[in-house]
Amino acid sequence: MKPMIYLDNAATTKTAPEVVDAMLPYFSELYGNPSSIYTIAGKSKEAITASRETIAGVLGAKPEEIYFTAGGSEADNWALKAAFEAYKGKGNHIITTKIEHHAILHTCEYLEKERGARITYLDVDEDGVVKLDQLENAITPETILISVMFANNEIGTIQPIKEIGMIAREHGILFHTDAVQAFGQVPIPVDEYDIDMLSSSGHKINGPKGIGFLYIRKGVKIRSFVHGGAQERKRRAGTENVPGIVGYGVAARRAAETMRERTQKEIQLRDYMIQRINAEVPNCKLNGHPSRRLPNNVNFSFEFVEGESLLIMLDMEGICASSGSACTSGSLDPSHVLLAIGLPHEIAHGSLRLTLSDETTKEDIDFTVDKIKEIVKKLRAMSPLYEDFVAGKTKSMIQ
Amino acid sequence: MKPMIYLDNAATTKTAPEVVDAMLPYFSELYGNPSSIYTIAGKSKEAITASRETIAGVLGAKPEEIYFTAGGSEADNWALKAAFEAYKGKGNHIITTKIEHHAILHTCEYLEKERGARITYLDVDEDGVVKLDQLENAITPETILISVMFANNEIGTIQPIKEIGMIAREHGILFHTDAVQAFGQVPIPVDEYDIDMLSSSGHKINGPKGIGFLYIRKGVKIRSFVHGGAQERKRRAGTENVPGIVGYGVAARRAAETMRERTQKEIQLRDYMIQRINAEVPNCKLNGHPSRRLPNNVNFSFEFVEGESLLIMLDMEGICASSGSACTSGSLDPSHVLLAIGLPHEIAHGSLRLTLSDETTKEDIDFTVDKIKEIVKKLRAMSPLYEDFVAGKTKSMIQ
Ligand SMILES: Cc1ncc(COP(=O)(O)O)c(C=O)c1O
Ligand SMILES: Cc1ncc(COP(=O)(O)O)c(C=O)c1O
Repeated sequence: MKPMIYLDNAATTKTAPEVVDAMLPYFSELYGNPSSIYTIAGKSKEAITASRETIAGVLGAKPEEIYFTAGGSEADNWALKAAFEAYKGKGNHIITTKIEHHAILHTCEYLEKERGARITYLDVDEDGVVKLDQLENAITPETILISVMFANNEIGTIQPIKEIGMIAREHGILFHTDAVQAFGQVPIPVDEYDIDMLSSSGHKINGPKGIGFLYIRKGVKIRSFVHGGAQERKRRAGTENVPGIVGYGVAARRAAETMRERTQKEIQLRDYMIQRINAEVPNCKLNGHPSRRLPNNVNFSFEFVEGESLLIMLDMEGICASSGSACTSGSLDPSHVLLAIGLPHEIAHGSLRLTLSDETTKEDIDFTVDKIKEIVKKLRAMSPLYEDFVAGKTKSMIQ
Repeated sequence: MKPMIYLDNAATTKTAPEVVDAMLPYFSELYGNPSSIYTIAGKSKEAITASRETIAGVLGAKPEEIYFTAGGSEADNWALKAAFEAYKGKGNHIITTKIEHHAILHTCEYLEKERGARITYLDVDEDGVVKLDQLENAITPETILISVMFANNEIGTIQPIKEIGMIAREHGILFHTDAVQAFGQVPIPVDEYDIDMLSSSGHKINGPKGIGFLYIRKGVKIRSFVHGGAQERKRRAGTENVPGIVGYGVAARRAAETMRERTQKEIQLRDYMIQRINAEVPNCKLNGHPSRRLPNNVNFSFEFVEGESLLIMLDMEGICASSGSACTSGSLDPSHVLLAIGLPHEIAHGSLRLTLSDETTKEDIDFTVDKIKEIVKKLRAMSPLYEDFVAGKTKSMIQ
């Protein structure tokens, strides 16, 4: 087998060995239920407390503002559904964007269809940035929640979260941000940014799968989403996933401690890759903001190329990449994010996301760009549309 | 430190070392997102499929009827809330029992208060068994769901699930059972028992914490609870907890394969313990059905004793036990289950749950019973109520 080059860290990451090591004692030794009163149960409880403190520290939040969930999707569902219920006395209007993850979009659809919510989906510009004036204009006295993702999972664009937080605060509206892609990658001071709720997911930052958290600012009156036992201060029922929580704490600390150095290195490699692809592959287009983007995100559209074929051929070279968000692969619809930034269907279909990690090397990048060049060439050679283009019968859709 | 005798397997269990071993490769080697298309992602997907098939096999169900969740509480919430939404065109009435786990009871309260549901809470007899005639009488044309737990987590009583399934089927009503305590302990043929939905949780059968499943019979039109990505055939969003799912599969296979032998041994030890306590500790009462109970469950009330003190003193002897369900410990309310079987408050407060595992030995039982005798004696010696009783001023509340 060829050595693998894993460039799909936005889909999921390798659980760091030190994370796994930290989890291990909580499976078969310190396995007590944290709600019990005897000694080994106390150890589980302490471990949860420590992890909560670590994560709170990364956000500049209080430990009691961190509520563990089973992942980012649950956190998103919780934030939206429970805020809707808690604040429906005030109004039924939620503002979000067209480029949110499906965990937000499908929850909004549910609230709209089943629960009488009214949702405004904000546009984004061609770089994927929310338009702040459109946000301000969308606010009504019935607006109870603004939910704008911190950074986009496909194109990596980072939103002006601080400005959005200020607008929300000025109008006395709750502000939630889906930070599943941003937590551990960029600093997120929740107080400075006026964030009231924030979703995150462990497996995106070298933590385990199946664990996440929702930050809920003290004073926000939000209901439960999962009802039952008194765990998580009665707000999220279910026996705690102790190993998962412990692992997430270690992953969060690790991400925070290495952030500056790691992301500097990633940004360098990212920009090197972008520059090489731009220079060496004709008829391509970088998607997302050129500089205000996640340190590890590269997203390109290649005209006259099917993203799916590109992926399969990259896989044959040992390169793991993605054509959009992992959750929708297998579907033939073009990405809603790429359509929202104005790409025509044809171009949206031919896009590729490459997301780096701290293990990515310059050699990986060079090898990958070389392969992309080759494969794009090969695929275009088989494309009748490309033939027409070369013959001058059609024009490029990319400027 | 004293060697630990863990008799709280209804709260949670030790993750079996073979389960942990099976999980390990999926953290740092085969960590791909199952929704991705490249090779290592395919391995995650295959592992999920294998686990789903194992679990389906244990229930006599089809693999596509198993939906992984983050645990029993999520499965319970999902079953009730989503069935309520899917069937609200037919009616708003749900029938359940007074002795369900809080994951059911608090979800019912939510549906009642927030969503316009009408809930009937069935009584149970003094052994904790649901009254079938009361169930039949409670059914109305608006009844959309019957939810009765398979076995009770505190007193271990096993319900007449087959009979309840027949009643539900006859009336064309959906039947859900919370089998968190029963799955892997007693055979559950979902077809024979006419079960439409069933909740389960990994950590109760030596699997990991943070993973569970909801069985949903094919044809049951139920909505999503966690909205978002297309995972679990679009019914449960969120990146799959691959190691958790793998571990749960191994735990389920292990539980099924060892069931007969393990539970025979447990029943012997259980009945030996019950018989010794009954014979050697005055003024005590076995809670739950004497024979139709979980193979590993012992639950006693000791008059003139505070359950909490008993637990603390047992812990000092290295014995882990519980006074009720783990999720409510820390609360001072007496168990709703013990009240429902007719115990007075005073007696409900003095109860002790001991739940065995396949590792429990006769020596453990003997040591524990000896300690219980000692401690109960000690605690009673300090009790003014006991003094009055001995002086003939008050009567025992236990027959
Ligand atoms: C009968 C029953 N239902 C539901 C649950 C909830 O399961 P979990 O804590 O894994 O979410 C439990 C265990 O606590 C239980 O015993
Ligand atoms: C922006 C964003 N939100 C939410 C999610 C959902 O997280 P999870 O799959 O861990 O539930 C993801 C990842 O898939 C994501 O990228």
